Order: sequence, then structure tokens, then C-alpha cells
Amino acid sequence: MTRWATLRWLDGTRLARRDGDEYVVYARSGVADLFHQLPGMSEGIGRVPVAEADHAPLSPTPSRVICVGLNYADHIAEMGRERPTHPTLFTKFASTLAGAYDDLPLPDVSAHVDWEAELALVIGAPAYRLSPADALGAIGGYTVANDVSMRDWQRRTTQWLAGKAFDATTPLGPELVTPDEVDHARDLAVTCLLDGVVRQLGRTSDLVFAPADIVSYVSQFTRLEPGDVLLTGTPGGVGAATDDGLVAGQVLETHVEGIGVCRNFVVADLAATTVEEAS
Amino acid sequence: MTRWATLRWLDGTRLARRDGDEYVVYARSGVADLFHQLPGMSEGIGRVPVAEADHAPLSPTPSRVICVGLNYADHIAEMGRERPTHPTLFTKFASTLAGAYDDLPLPDVSAHVDWEAELALVIGAPAYRLSPADALGAIGGYTVANDVSMRDWQRRTTQWLAGKAFDATTPLGPELVTPDEVDHARDLAVTCLLDGVVRQLGRTSDLVFAPADIVSYVSQFTRLEPGDVLLTGTPGGVGAATDDGLVAGQVLETHVEGIGVCRNFVVADLAATTVEEAS
Repeated sequence: MTRWATLRWLDGTRLARRDGDEYVVYARSGVADLFHQLPGMSEGIGRVPVAEADHAPLSPTPSRVICVGLNYADHIAEMGRERPTHPTLFTKFASTLAGAYDDLPLPDVSAHVDWEAELALVIGAPAYRLSPADALGAIGGYTVANDVSMRDWQRRTTQWLAGKAFDATTPLGPELVTPDEVDHARDLAVTCLLDGVVRQLGRTSDLVFAPADIVSYVSQFTRLEPGDVLLTGTPGGVGAATDDGLVAGQVLETHVEGIGVCRNFVVADLAATTVEEAS
Repeated sequence: MTRWATLRWLDGTRLARRDGDEYVVYARSGVADLFHQLPGMSEGIGRVPVAEADHAPLSPTPSRVICVGLNYADHIAEMGRERPTHPTLFTKFASTLAGAYDDLPLPDVSAHVDWEAELALVIGAPAYRLSPADALGAIGGYTVANDVSMRDWQRRTTQWLAGKAFDATTPLGPELVTPDEVDHARDLAVTCLLDGVVRQLGRTSDLVFAPADIVSYVSQFTRLEPGDVLLTGTPGGVGAATDDGLVAGQVLETHVEGIGVCRNFVVADLAATTVEEAS
């Protein structure tokens, strides 16, 4: 059992290994370095108690952040969609990611910010045109994400990007769990709580496209690299289904069984300034 | 008048400045370095005749490649869509980009590869929550792109990504032209030729969302950085409108008036291997 994290440390981010109630910190910038076979990993450069660690986005500089929409039957139904024949894919940027315990800023230009608890995975080996069976071996580990979505921006056009890619709105982490520890996430509970109340509860065994299917499909068109992040979709219970949304002051918790919890305090977007939009 | 390129050179890519029939090559990795105010740019490390230069994707490692769909009235009509109220945005990866004269591989997993000639721009300064007027100043320069699209993959789901992000299928370049030289691309002809026959011909003055509008809109949700690439959309005449597509052996030429030409020989995808797909 090994768990890894990416911590904010001095002037940047550092790879850290869980050791009981502490993290051992290494002279590496994040979890992608686990998969690059770099020499000199044996010695840590420091230790920090888990309770005092400052978690960066688990994979801080991925070349690709790829998400699957409509991948649980109950969420497909609540959004009024047909069961898909292929994964519905969209992207985020590295800058969209946030730390597992970071405050979650509500963009003041959006009137409807929604939650989407998800199992996420980090690529551990180059993956190009792999079968699902081979794709399983390219998965470096699993973690937790919340695909926080600005629904009004998402629905302005047919393409969802604008509502999915606001900077620092997708918590990712806190730890990377190796595939063996969670049986490749075949049957884990995925839960979203808002102020302690369960809003979403699904099981990864209900995924239409399992992690290896997703990696295989994406690898048909692009060569995935270590550190790339894939989000596998969200179960039923999103706010969009009941006209509900996040409000400043709430606590958003995202659990994946056996992996961990993201806990984010929802805050107003203080950095925002009002400007004219193109329209 | 200054024109810049990114060339393949020794073990990587290098920034180059056009000097008549030659490029002066600098110890910088590409055009994004133009905007980072690095010292020591005065001395070139070499020269190469323009005719012998090996062009890399003009911006080789952008953090964001963002594209606008449905941005010319005639293309909106041929695709049977309504005139949009907001830019329709989707993304590619850095790995999707190709050099201006690279061979264009037809993915053997796609039965319909289509062309989309486009004006592109490269961000020259950080851009966050800018008005269109201020966004103009964040544009570092203009260039040429072809948003080559795998229509069958694009249409499998509501989200276009899979058809837009096959590795090495989007020529970008060959040169970055500073905004003053082309009056911020306000009224330039955009042309696509297949084996010398004009298939698309539009003018940037017909764009629904002009470059500054697009930069402003995107900057509402993410902080754009120097080197980021934006594609502005394609005029009417795509193959999808007439059930036409690219075939190996053809020459695809993409012109933007006053900026330059991408010229790509269409080839079979020799790297391909047949695998099972997730479905």
C-alpha cells in the first residue's frame, strides 16, 4: 500500500509519499515523476504531518485533462439523454485543477455553479492505440475529483467547455492510490455531500465506460502521457436536475470509497471584476 | 515588419526571425519566448535558408489550444445551425498541432477526414477578464491553421473533441505576423485549396466573433498565457457540406492573405495498428 500526494512546498510543488501520519517529501515536482523512472528518489528532502500538508492539484501540470460526461445510467436519465455508444469527451486545462482542500471560488459571472463527484485516474505510462486490456496497465493510479460546472456557461452553446474550464474550480486529490489497492476501482462508492448531506451516491460498477475503456478510446486519437488526468463521469444527483447550485459558505465534500476525500469550502470569487462580455 | 517562426533544430525547436530569404535562429525554443522578455536575444546561433527550414508547430508547447466553431455566417448555414449568441468553444492538445509543411496523416480509424481553413492567433501577454478593447493588446500575432476534423469521430457524441484532437493533424504556421502588419486581421481572405482547386474562400471581416471578442470571452474563465493558440473558425465550403473528404495523395493548402500558407501532403497513417475500440 503506497499513497502519493503533490504538496505545495517552498517555491513550487513536490512529490510526497504517505508514511502513517506524515508525508515524506521528495525533490520531484509531482506524481507524474513517479512514472518517469528518475534516479535518486530514495532520499526524502523533508517530512510534514498529514494534517499540516498543503495539497496542490494531485497532477499539477498534466498535458491533458480529459473528462467523460454521461457515464452513469442514473445521471444519463436525470439529464434526459440516451445511453451513449461512445464516451462523451470534453476537456479542462491544467489551470482548471485545484487542491483537494482549496477554497472553491464561485465565479461571479456565473449564476449556477453545480457539483459532480467523480472517480479520476492518472496515466502512468504512455498509451497509444491500446486495447482495453492493455490500457489497464497504463493507469498509474486513482484519485478523487469534483467536476464543478458553471451550468449557464456550459449551456450557452452545444459545446460544454466554457462551463467546465473556469480556473481553479476542479478539486483533484488528495492522494493517488495504486490500482492494486482498490482492485482498479471496479466497485467503489462515489459520494458527494453538501454541508454533510448526501446529494450524489453511485458505484463505479455502474459506469457505462470503465476506466480501461476510456483510456483505450482516448488512446485511439492521442498518445496519453504520464501525469495526464482522466475524469470518469458523475452519478445522479447533480444540482442541475433539481435547479439547485452551490452557495458561498457551504462545504463541498467528494468521496471515493477506499481512495479519499476532497473537502472544499465554497467562497465568493473575490478576484472577479465586472467587464463587458463578447456576445 | 517582423515575422517569426519556430523551427526544428538539432535536438528540439528554436525561435527564428525572418531575414529576407533566411531565418536567423535564436537560443529560444519557440515563439512564446518572444513574449517572456528573456535577456540575450540579440545574437543568433545560426542561419538557415527559408527554403530549407523545417517548421515545427508555430507554438510548440501551448498550455491551451482553443478553437471557435460556427463563426462565419456561410459555414453556420451549410451546417444547418443558428447564428450563435456566444462563441462555440472546443479544444485541441499541444500534440494535435503539426508543422506548416508536415505530411498530414489520415487516421486509418476514421472514414471521413475534412478540412477547415482558419485564421489563428497566438497570445502575447497574460489575459484575464479583459474587455474586447483590452483583449486586442494581448494578441501577440496572427498565423494560419487548418482545423482538420475527423467527422465520424466528431459526431459520435454531442461533444466534438474526439474528432478534433487526433495527434499531429492541425497544421499551424509557418510564421507569426505581428498585429500591426495585418491591421489585426480585420479583413483578410481565408482560402482552402485541395490539389489547387479552391474549396473555401471567406473573409475575416465576416467573422461573427472577431479575434478580440474571442480572447475577451475566453479570458472570463481562464487566464490566457503567452504562447496559447486560438483558432477563429472556418468559412463555408467544408467537405462535410458535400460529403467530400481528404484522400491520400492530395495536397491541402491553407492561405490567409498577408500572413502565409500551410501546405500539407496528405498521406496514409502508417503508424496505425488495428485495435479494439471501447464501445
